Amino acid sequence: MHPTVRILSIGDELVLGRVTDTNASFLCRLATDHGFRVLGAQQVGDGEAGITAALLAAAQDAELVLISGGLGPTDDDRTRHALAAALGVPLAEHAPSWTAIEARYRRLAPTRVIPPNNRRQALLPRGARPLANDRGTAPGMVATLRPQNTPRKRTLVAVFPGVPHEMKAMAERFSATLPRRFPGLTVPHISEVWFAGIGESAAQERLGDLLSESAPQVGITVSELGHLTLRVVGEPREVAARTRALRACLKGLLLPAAGLAPSLVAALSKRRATITAAESCTGGHVAALLTAVPGASTVLRESLVAYHPSVKHARLDVPLRVMSKDGIVSEACARAMAVGAQARSGATFAIATTGVAGPTGGSVENPVGTVWLAVATAAGSATRKVFIQGIRERIQARAATSALQLAWDALHGLVTLD
Amino acid sequence: MHPTVRILSIGDELVLGRVTDTNASFLCRLATDHGFRVLGAQQVGDGEAGITAALLAAAQDAELVLISGGLGPTDDDRTRHALAAALGVPLAEHAPSWTAIEARYRRLAPTRVIPPNNRRQALLPRGARPLANDRGTAPGMVATLRPQNTPRKRTLVAVFPGVPHEMKAMAERFSATLPRRFPGLTVPHISEVWFAGIGESAAQERLGDLLSESAPQVGITVSELGHLTLRVVGEPREVAARTRALRACLKGLLLPAAGLAPSLVAALSKRRATITAAESCTGGHVAALLTAVPGASTVLRESLVAYHPSVKHARLDVPLRVMSKDGIVSEACARAMAVGAQARSGATFAIATTGVAGPTGGSVENPVGTVWLAVATAAGSATRKVFIQGIRERIQARAATSALQLAWDALHGLVTLD
Repeated sequence: MHPTVRILSIGDELVLGRVTDTNASFLCRLATDHGFRVLGAQQVGDGEAGITAALLAAAQDAELVLISGGLGPTDDDRTRHALAAALGVPLAEHAPSWTAIEARYRRLAPTRVIPPNNRRQALLPRGARPLANDRGTAPGMVATLRPQNTPRKRTLVAVFPGVPHEMKAMAERFSATLPRRFPGLTVPHISEVWFAGIGESAAQERLGDLLSESAPQVGITVSELGHLTLRVVGEPREVAARTRALRACLKGLLLPAAGLAPSLVAALSKRRATITAAESCTGGHVAALLTAVPGASTVLRESLVAYHPSVKHARLDVPLRVMSKDGIVSEACARAMAVGAQARSGATFAIATTGVAGPTGGSVENPVGTVWLAVATAAGSATRKVFIQGIRERIQARAATSALQLAWDALHGLVTLD
Repeated sequence: MHPTVRILSIGDELVLGRVTDTNASFLCRLATDHGFRVLGAQQVGDGEAGITAALLAAAQDAELVLISGGLGPTDDDRTRHALAAALGVPLAEHAPSWTAIEARYRRLAPTRVIPPNNRRQALLPRGARPLANDRGTAPGMVATLRPQNTPRKRTLVAVFPGVPHEMKAMAERFSATLPRRFPGLTVPHISEVWFAGIGESAAQERLGDLLSESAPQVGITVSELGHLTLRVVGEPREVAARTRALRACLKGLLLPAAGLAPSLVAALSKRRATITAAESCTGGHVAALLTAVPGASTVLRESLVAYHPSVKHARLDVPLRVMSKDGIVSEACARAMAVGAQARSGATFAIATTGVAGPTGGSVENPVGTVWLAVATAAGSATRKVFIQGIRERIQARAATSALQLAWDALHGLVTLD
């Protein structure tokens, strides 16, 4: 049984397009992983009437509605009022919630008088129950709505704060109660296969009928982090069989973790190998991707952003004539950077990037988006040229993941080092 | 006149929560900036019936519907079919679009046979007009819908590809046609004020009545990039007057650009000053923030990720006894890293970070989230301790923006260097 859910995210900043809504995707994933079928997600402005209308509409066809945002202390924060209006009940102060808010203030700001507005955060619609917030002031709430025109139906409504880390902690605790609240809930079997080194359309051609809409459902997504994910959802036996078939079909491209950086850190760590980077156009993005992985300190001891030609020469021994003759954005410069970084650091692998991230600095030979990558070990080096369309942000991000791909390929003997 | 708009983003990966929808916020902002009132944004799965239903529902109260996604070449891509169903017309191949797809393939992959599926991308609902795609295969489309039960009304529907950079380029070109399509469209006057150095609630208290819901509307948003933005929307004269008042109230906290990194790069560049970083727990995030700014190469020549204690000692001259006595996560270590990085690089300013990004490595004295920051010039140094709640990703990102804040404060004499 896969009950239905709709997700609402509340906030003028969302509909004005000032802030990207990351809460909806988190809640969509959480609900899916717990066996719900997501009918849709929606961003709604701060106005009380709009929230009430969206909630009532969502309750028409969804058995669960998850809302985040609009629980702050200011007059603009109207989600609790909208929920009360949808339930047709008044708001009343919930004494234990007010005590918890007072205790939090005393702990974090003992000398400060609690702003009277915060009292509003202890209000609950009559009949709703609070959800504790261990990271912020506003409690969440859960209530049962009986939508009009569907007299026999009930919709469970849960409201979380809009602050992402408060919302996530609360929603995860709440999700543990879902099997009890929805008896018969079937949690789907899910498996993921991660791979890299080919594009989405080449992967689709290669996988053919192994991508299917049902029994099991197999979907493919492309990550900004430089890898692709296959997600297999269905009955345990069909998920296991299909996963095996997908892995066999993608042999040589599989990653052990969800991303090139965590895969590299795991593989290097296993071999007790280390890595360093000498970054020009990526300006720290390669190091940031690697150090985002917990435990990266065992494989990355140091990394250098070598933006200026004098730094490439002084720190990495890139010969001045390479830069003057071949240019900064060249195969020879990338290779010399990687070789220099490996020698200087003693790391097992060194990767280097040099290119034109734009928006200016492009030329006929090296238009914006041209990036030379190199990898070096004590035994040799290899280079790769990539061309990335788009804005500076995208060029830097893609160049960094392409550099990790080259290191991955070198680690697995997929490129020749000479 | 502010006509209404609804935004739809199509894709199973969105409702399954695998991918965060950044297209909706882009289109919300684009529409708002062009004078539209956004009624809501919504993520819908790939199913044709669901897309048609969402489009018809959106057209009930919105004068413009902007859709992204579902224009790919596979059987799952149903947005053009859903639009045809909503319009009640058949799909037919649009010959010039097919010619454009063929030409693109010939240019990018001369030896490859065009997959027959791509022919689907030249299909248009009868009466719809194509929108050219200069970055990908799928053309967009624009059509006029006459929703049922509102016989006199028309809703303009524009469909863009789901790939963000293709969508953005197409939507921006399309938006230039909106004043012609909506005669009387009033483009609002908008001004933004950027500042940093205080939190959101302190800012709200300080600004008081200068934050208002209308005439002009003044909203505050907190950025992940470490700054706050005030957005003033209204009539030209009231926008100008309020902007002056806001700037006066925030004197000393104002930033010249939308973010600490671009503000720092601009301010340093103006003074012909340079900056470098010695990063431990932020692992490249400080450098990545700075080098994300076009022109950063004039102020950042090099930057070092010094993860391992031996690197802190060898490259930055951090005394071994500082690390053994005070510890790696200590005021003394942060200060020595900054002083060493400044001396080594000759940069005007050096910033350093050392802390516990987690999830492991915390202790009673230094729990996960503890970060020491330092800034040094040839004249002296200063330190700051911050404590950041949350997961590793958030701790690294916040620590990096806090480091930029410390550099900003040092540049403006807001901290004493000794």
